[in-house]
Amino acid sequence: MALVGKKFPNLSVNAMDEMGDTFKINVLEEAQKNNKKVLLFWYPKDFTFVCPTELHAFQEALGEFEKRNVKVIGASCDTAEVHFAWLNTAKDNGGIEGVTYPILADSNRNLSSQLGILDISNEQYDEETGAVTVEGDNVTYRATYLIDEEGTIFHESVNHMPLGRNVKEFMRLIDAYSHVQEKGEVCPANWEEGKEA
Amino acid sequence: MALVGKKFPNLSVNAMDEMGDTFKINVLEEAQKNNKKVLLFWYPKDFTFVCPTELHAFQEALGEFEKRNVKVIGASCDTAEVHFAWLNTAKDNGGIEGVTYPILADSNRNLSSQLGILDISNEQYDEETGAVTVEGDNVTYRATYLIDEEGTIFHESVNHMPLGRNVKEFMRLIDAYSHVQEKGEVCPANWEEGKEA
Amino acid sequence: MALVGKKFPNLSVNAMDEMGDTFKINVLEEAQKNNKKVLLFWYPKDFTFVCPTELHAFQEALGEFEKRNVKVIGASCDTAEVHFAWLNTAKDNGGIEGVTYPILADSNRNLSSQLGILDISNEQYDEETGAVTVEGDNVTYRATYLIDEEGTIFHESVNHMPLGRNVKEFMRLIDAYSHVQEKGEVCPANWEEGKEA
Amino acid sequence: MALVGKKFPNLSVNAMDEMGDTFKINVLEEAQKNNKKVLLFWYPKDFTFVCPTELHAFQEALGEFEKRNVKVIGASCDTAEVHFAWLNTAKDNGGIEGVTYPILADSNRNLSSQLGILDISNEQYDEETGAVTVEGDNVTYRATYLIDEEGTIFHESVNHMPLGRNVKEFMRLIDAYSHVQEKGEVCPANWEEGKEA
Amino acid sequence: MALVGKKFPNLSVNAMDEMGDTFKINVLEEAQKNNKKVLLFWYPKDFTFVCPTELHAFQEALGEFEKRNVKVIGASCDTAEVHFAWLNTAKDNGGIEGVTYPILADSNRNLSSQLGILDISNEQYDEETGAVTVEGDNVTYRATYLIDEEGTIFHESVNHMPLGRNVKEFMRLIDAYSHVQEKGEVCPANWEEGKEA
Amino acid sequence: MALVGKKFPNLSVNAMDEMGDTFKINVLEEAQKNNKKVLLFWYPKDFTFVCPTELHAFQEALGEFEKRNVKVIGASCDTAEVHFAWLNTAKDNGGIEGVTYPILADSNRNLSSQLGILDISNEQYDEETGAVTVEGDNVTYRATYLIDEEGTIFHESVNHMPLGRNVKEFMRLIDAYSHVQEKGEVCPANWEEGKEA
Amino acid sequence: MALVGKKFPNLSVNAMDEMGDTFKINVLEEAQKNNKKVLLFWYPKDFTFVCPTELHAFQEALGEFEKRNVKVIGASCDTAEVHFAWLNTAKDNGGIEGVTYPILADSNRNLSSQLGILDISNEQYDEETGAVTVEGDNVTYRATYLIDEEGTIFHESVNHMPLGRNVKEFMRLIDAYSHVQEKGEVCPANWEEGKEA
Amino acid sequence: MALVGKKFPNLSVNAMDEMGDTFKINVLEEAQKNNKKVLLFWYPKDFTFVCPTELHAFQEALGEFEKRNVKVIGASCDTAEVHFAWLNTAKDNGGIEGVTYPILADSNRNLSSQLGILDISNEQYDEETGAVTVEGDNVTYRATYLIDEEGTIFHESVNHMPLGRNVKEFMRLIDAYSHVQEKGEVCPANWEEGKEA
Amino acid sequence: MALVGKKFPNLSVNAMDEMGDTFKINVLEEAQKNNKKVLLFWYPKDFTFVCPTELHAFQEALGEFEKRNVKVIGASCDTAEVHFAWLNTAKDNGGIEGVTYPILADSNRNLSSQLGILDISNEQYDEETGAVTVEGDNVTYRATYLIDEEGTIFHESVNHMPLGRNVKEFMRLIDAYSHVQEKGEVCPANWEEGKEA
Amino acid sequence: MALVGKKFPNLSVNAMDEMGDTFKINVLEEAQKNNKKVLLFWYPKDFTFVCPTELHAFQEALGEFEKRNVKVIGASCDTAEVHFAWLNTAKDNGGIEGVTYPILADSNRNLSSQLGILDISNEQYDEETGAVTVEGDNVTYRATYLIDEEGTIFHESVNHMPLGRNVKEFMRLIDAYSHVQEKGEVCPANWEEGKEA
Repeated sequence: MALVGKKFPNLSVNAMDEMGDTFKINVLEEAQKNNKKVLLFWYPKDFTFVCPTELHAFQEALGEFEKRNVKVIGASCDTAEVHFAWLNTAKDNGGIEGVTYPILADSNRNLSSQLGILDISNEQYDEETGAVTVEGDNVTYRATYLIDEEGTIFHESVNHMPLGRNVKEFMRLIDAYSHVQEKGEVCPANWEEGKEA
Repeated sequence: MALVGKKFPNLSVNAMDEMGDTFKINVLEEAQKNNKKVLLFWYPKDFTFVCPTELHAFQEALGEFEKRNVKVIGASCDTAEVHFAWLNTAKDNGGIEGVTYPILADSNRNLSSQLGILDISNEQYDEETGAVTVEGDNVTYRATYLIDEEGTIFHESVNHMPLGRNVKEFMRLIDAYSHVQEKGEVCPANWEEGKEA
Repeated sequence: MALVGKKFPNLSVNAMDEMGDTFKINVLEEAQKNNKKVLLFWYPKDFTFVCPTELHAFQEALGEFEKRNVKVIGASCDTAEVHFAWLNTAKDNGGIEGVTYPILADSNRNLSSQLGILDISNEQYDEETGAVTVEGDNVTYRATYLIDEEGTIFHESVNHMPLGRNVKEFMRLIDAYSHVQEKGEVCPANWEEGKEA
Repeated sequence: MALVGKKFPNLSVNAMDEMGDTFKINVLEEAQKNNKKVLLFWYPKDFTFVCPTELHAFQEALGEFEKRNVKVIGASCDTAEVHFAWLNTAKDNGGIEGVTYPILADSNRNLSSQLGILDISNEQYDEETGAVTVEGDNVTYRATYLIDEEGTIFHESVNHMPLGRNVKEFMRLIDAYSHVQEKGEVCPANWEEGKEA
Repeated sequence: MALVGKKFPNLSVNAMDEMGDTFKINVLEEAQKNNKKVLLFWYPKDFTFVCPTELHAFQEALGEFEKRNVKVIGASCDTAEVHFAWLNTAKDNGGIEGVTYPILADSNRNLSSQLGILDISNEQYDEETGAVTVEGDNVTYRATYLIDEEGTIFHESVNHMPLGRNVKEFMRLIDAYSHVQEKGEVCPANWEEGKEA
Repeated sequence: MALVGKKFPNLSVNAMDEMGDTFKINVLEEAQKNNKKVLLFWYPKDFTFVCPTELHAFQEALGEFEKRNVKVIGASCDTAEVHFAWLNTAKDNGGIEGVTYPILADSNRNLSSQLGILDISNEQYDEETGAVTVEGDNVTYRATYLIDEEGTIFHESVNHMPLGRNVKEFMRLIDAYSHVQEKGEVCPANWEEGKEA
Repeated sequence: MALVGKKFPNLSVNAMDEMGDTFKINVLEEAQKNNKKVLLFWYPKDFTFVCPTELHAFQEALGEFEKRNVKVIGASCDTAEVHFAWLNTAKDNGGIEGVTYPILADSNRNLSSQLGILDISNEQYDEETGAVTVEGDNVTYRATYLIDEEGTIFHESVNHMPLGRNVKEFMRLIDAYSHVQEKGEVCPANWEEGKEA
Repeated sequence: MALVGKKFPNLSVNAMDEMGDTFKINVLEEAQKNNKKVLLFWYPKDFTFVCPTELHAFQEALGEFEKRNVKVIGASCDTAEVHFAWLNTAKDNGGIEGVTYPILADSNRNLSSQLGILDISNEQYDEETGAVTVEGDNVTYRATYLIDEEGTIFHESVNHMPLGRNVKEFMRLIDAYSHVQEKGEVCPANWEEGKEA
Repeated sequence: MALVGKKFPNLSVNAMDEMGDTFKINVLEEAQKNNKKVLLFWYPKDFTFVCPTELHAFQEALGEFEKRNVKVIGASCDTAEVHFAWLNTAKDNGGIEGVTYPILADSNRNLSSQLGILDISNEQYDEETGAVTVEGDNVTYRATYLIDEEGTIFHESVNHMPLGRNVKEFMRLIDAYSHVQEKGEVCPANWEEGKEA
Repeated sequence: MALVGKKFPNLSVNAMDEMGDTFKINVLEEAQKNNKKVLLFWYPKDFTFVCPTELHAFQEALGEFEKRNVKVIGASCDTAEVHFAWLNTAKDNGGIEGVTYPILADSNRNLSSQLGILDISNEQYDEETGAVTVEGDNVTYRATYLIDEEGTIFHESVNHMPLGRNVKEFMRLIDAYSHVQEKGEVCPANWEEGKEA
């Protein structure tokens, strides 16, 4: 079920940043209360090799996003403690030192299961023990959500595990949506800021 | 629920092309039997103004997709008759004359409802008459699916109504996925064909 | 289940006319608020070949219907955008240029499914995906409803796809019903205005 | 729910004709076994005043229907005994003397309830006694069915109680349908035998 | 389930008499409001041969019943129109001309189904169509009810189709019950008015 | 629900006669195996005052019933022991000494509850104890059944407690039914053996 | 489920004594309102041979029970009328003439089914007729209940059909319970009034 | 629900005797396999003061029971270890030293709950924890069962906690039942061996 | 389901100590009302050989627990009467004479079933009798609970039947938890009072 | 529900060790196939401060466990990648470098949810979205399981988050259980290897 056109779920989730103290983020309120757009991107696991390149790429573009009044938030299902250890690992050692935007620590999967982006399948219920077993690591695909100032999702995409994202494409989508918001014009295929809509 | 990592639904759907005769396409078989990738893109309605730019953009890139062994398929919930009328309308009159790839005519919504990309909400059941009423036009968002040679979805994305798509980004994703298939290497952020993974 | 003798469903539906802007029509209110009879006729699809002859035939008789205080409304499950494109297609090209009565665009099938006139069958529910698939194009048969000033249906008929309608027969039925309303006499077989009841 | 496009219900029903002995008719078999079309018309009650004019009108046109290989059958929910009494009542006394086609005596409402054409409403179940009470006389509206040689309904219509039918319109529909069967051409609005389709 | 000892069902039913206008009778109120006993007898069908002899027999004894403050009511499932036609048919032609007590026209079977005296069996529900089919003509057996001034049934009996009733036996039962009401004595077997209880 | 036209229930019940030993009777088999008609009459209780007069009346007419090949059976819900005590009580003491036909001892109410002739009402289920309580003595009304040689009930009647039965009326009904069986003629009202049907 | 330690069911039941008029007894109120103990004994059937010896034995000991403030009540499922007939039958003829304590006439089994002492088994529900059939005569075992002044059961016992009871053992149990009530001492095995507890 | 007339439950239960090793007893098999009668008596708790007197009383009568081919078995819900401790406690210290018949250790209440003789009430289910809580000590009343050689219960009785049993009464019941078995005569009230039945 | 981190169940349970009178203990209130920690230990059965060594070991350490403001409570499913007998049995005879802390007598298993520490398995429900049978003695494993002053469980452990407990380990856990409560420091592995955390 | 006395769940779980490749461990098979005991200990999270001291303490004692034929396995809900990062972090930096036993990576919680040791509470189901939200981090308490060579759990314990474990106590429990296995003697309280049982 597409989430585009709907409000982002109203949930508070643990988060960590380079300061080292766990805090709470509610993505919906982040957009509505601060009157900002939000770019929320999920990656499967800390301490793997595709993921840090994505986190560094978003860090490098952070200034551009801020100019557009967009808050960037990363997310995985690891704990805040693991995020902090990774944030303290040098880039050369596969770490993400230097990342300054917050990272959700959705260890209880409250948010990722509501978005439906966990890689689990074949859920099975054991009648005798009442326990549920699944196949898969119970981590998220590379899902990305663009959310407007009213908390409405205007883009969602999901990449399979091995495929990194293109930061510029999200920039383009944000610009196009801002164009629609300002001009009331729809944006045709391959639209880019500065070109004719 | 993300469809990435799952097989595309096994369904035959009516389709139309510039030849004018209705025929059937089963997207899953299209990939598996012909050992091709498939790019399937949905647009809301025939005879509107954003949509033809997207259809033309895919047509222009058709050669590039074919080089990559990718079959392009368009789709909306209009009937095959309406598709044919639009195919026979000149580009200058807002038509899509010149488009040669097939377009699904999912007028019974069998496929779009299974993908969960219809813009309907507030489904209500009337106990007395047994009828169901919904809000929304019952047409699709701008959803795109990339499917590999085994029929597995490796990318899905959904844009809100007014946002056109970027054909090059899909090209990049297909190249990156082919790279993973051939090299067994994962593709980091902003990866592009010819750069180092 | 016959609908004759019951009120017409109380639903607002998108509509289009030659002016080009989508608007809403509630057939029940159209009758009750304007104290008019309504003739509502459904055809399967825009841009086909039987259908335009019916639309033109109703257009030609429009003056006669208006003399009898009858509002004529056409209807199919195509979108308003498609209706407009067809309204702008010349009669010689299979279009309906010149039609001035409104045409319902029941793309979400709210009204046609409540009337039970869609050509779908073998509805099947897929337990795993929660999706419903049907056989048929999910378009309407050639159904016609005559509704009196209180919103009560006094005639309904349904023709199979290939059979066009006879505009004069509906005129006869309207005259006969008006006769009953005025004279309180029932109308025998083959009754016609001016003959003895 | 429209019955057009579906097979007529497979049911045997009591019937009476001018010979005076009750016999059984299965409308579906009547069409299929004899390779005939069937025109089945329902009227509310024996011994009323609109009804005999309709019965006489069909009788007068019987030769025309037979030429077209159409079997005419009348029907109401009265018993066969009552039909016989009415058949023996002179036309001048409000009877139907002279009618030679069979008349169904659906006193148990097996067929009329399956067709959904009874004038009952507000069905209420009494929990204590297990009895069901309804409003209405539990007789049928003026419903007409045209059935082809395979038993498929190609036209249905229902008139409110006081509106008599037009025998010629049914003749026209039968001719149009035969034309489609023979020529494979669809019949546009107001089509009549001998004119161009 | 025996109905003796219970109140007669509280239902209004259409009725006809020799005056020709349909009116409503509620048997329970007929007893309670007029402080009368009621003899209600059901017969299967109008225009048959056993039935008129029973109707005439009750007519002949009508004076005796009135002397005992008993209202006689006949009943079948035919319509009021059919009752009227039969009331206007001479006795010699198998009619019931001369009958002056009212006859219930329970065409919707509200009352007869609550009494459980219809000759239907093998009720079958068709899951697909939601229709119910039965065996039998859906007419009543020869059932008779004696009801006292408080609306309580004190005798019920049912004869199979071909067996006519004995009017005198009902007279005897009414006399015996009146005796019990007045004297407080129970009435032994074969008791008759004027003999010792 | 009328039982006329149905087979009598297939059940074996305890019975007693003047010989003093309990035995079993299955009424249905009694008719079918012996090719006899059966008259089965129920009375409320042994050792009351109306009941013995009925039992004596049937005894006196026993020869007439036997001539007509009818087996007479009495029945109540008392035990076989109580029946025997009553059979041994002189007529002058309110007993039924001299009765020779068998009497059912339906103390477990298997048969009477299936016939629906017990005087109980307001059945209430106590959730806590699982017990059921009723109002009434749980004895039968004065119900009479006439059963033909195939086990089919052709007459049933029920009298309220204080009303004794008329043995001759049952004789008349048996004669009429035999007449129908032999002659195939239906028997009109007040028919009696020897008169014209 | 043992009933000892629970209150006796709160139910009014028909009863008979040598005076001949039916009256009601509520065993629970009998104990609580009169501040008495109650001995309630059930026997299977009137007019059998073990039963009267038990009834006479309780009669003979009645004075002893009254001295102990104990009310004796007999009970079976026969009607009050049968009880009265048996009370009027001389002891020599197997009767119970001379018995003065009341006897419950639980013909509707309200009380005995709540106590669970009926000899029925294999209850079977017939889906078609809704009737229940059982095996057994639906009479009670020889069950005995001792109830104290607050309505609490302090002893229950059940004997199989052929085993008569020992009146003295109940006397001993009542004395022992009274001893506990007065002295607060528990009563060891084989305790008897006058011996040391 | 009375258990008299039914087979004793088919269950194996832990038991202890003066030898000190836990073993299993199945009471039903004890009767059937050894062709013996069984007297099974339950007491509430080991190490209380009424109970040992009952255990000693049965021990003293053990020779008499054996002469009658009756196996005596005691029972409580204490463990086998506790039974052994009590068997090793001298009579003067409230113990049961000297008892030689086996004692069931129904600590899991399998048998006592099936017999329905535990003193628990107000069973309550806690939805949150899934736990059940009850009022009462979950020990048995003083219940006694007499079982014949076929495993059928012919007597059951239950005494409230403080009331000891009378060993002689059980002897009398066994003698009476043996009398019935041998002589086929029923045993009247107060019957004793050697007296006339 | 782990109980650590949850409140101890709020239940009152019978208990016994060397004084000999049964009283009630609610473990949760014991902690909360007295502002104490509680050590609750369960053993399988009184009068066995491992169990007394555990009870004596806790008794010997009682002073140390009291210094730490910890209340010690023992528990099994035996009755209070059996506990008292064991408390009065000399240590040399396998008794627990000298134990002064209270011992729960959870004979109704209200608490142990809620904790889930009974050794039962294969619970089976007998549809016919409504009885439940289990395997196992229905006694507890050697479970131990440490509860803080707010009633929250901070340690739970369960040993299989033959394994005795180590009193000092519970002392260490209590000291470590007190350290956390006072210092706010977590306690690493093998922490002991006086060592560095 | 205590797991002691039951088989350990039969599940394969991801694991990591100092070699860096993810592999599968099935704890039950580990015990049964290798005929070893298993000590499985769970800690809440990688990269925290209590946890590494426990992991180091088990590492130091590894030789002692191996001498006793015990396999040590650690476990948390972090991913294998995070385990590997932690295994590569020096002890001085809060890492667990030097640990050689495997560590389960139960990121999908299949095993921990079946053991019931996750710190989640207040599970809530959202009807609209079908999503489940919980309170708590969805990580495990400090739970420890001792499993014998047949896969049966003989000890389980759970410490609240801040309480570290005592490695020696588990050694003592293993020695005691081995003693029972060899000698068949139960081990009393405070038992230690080399002391008398």
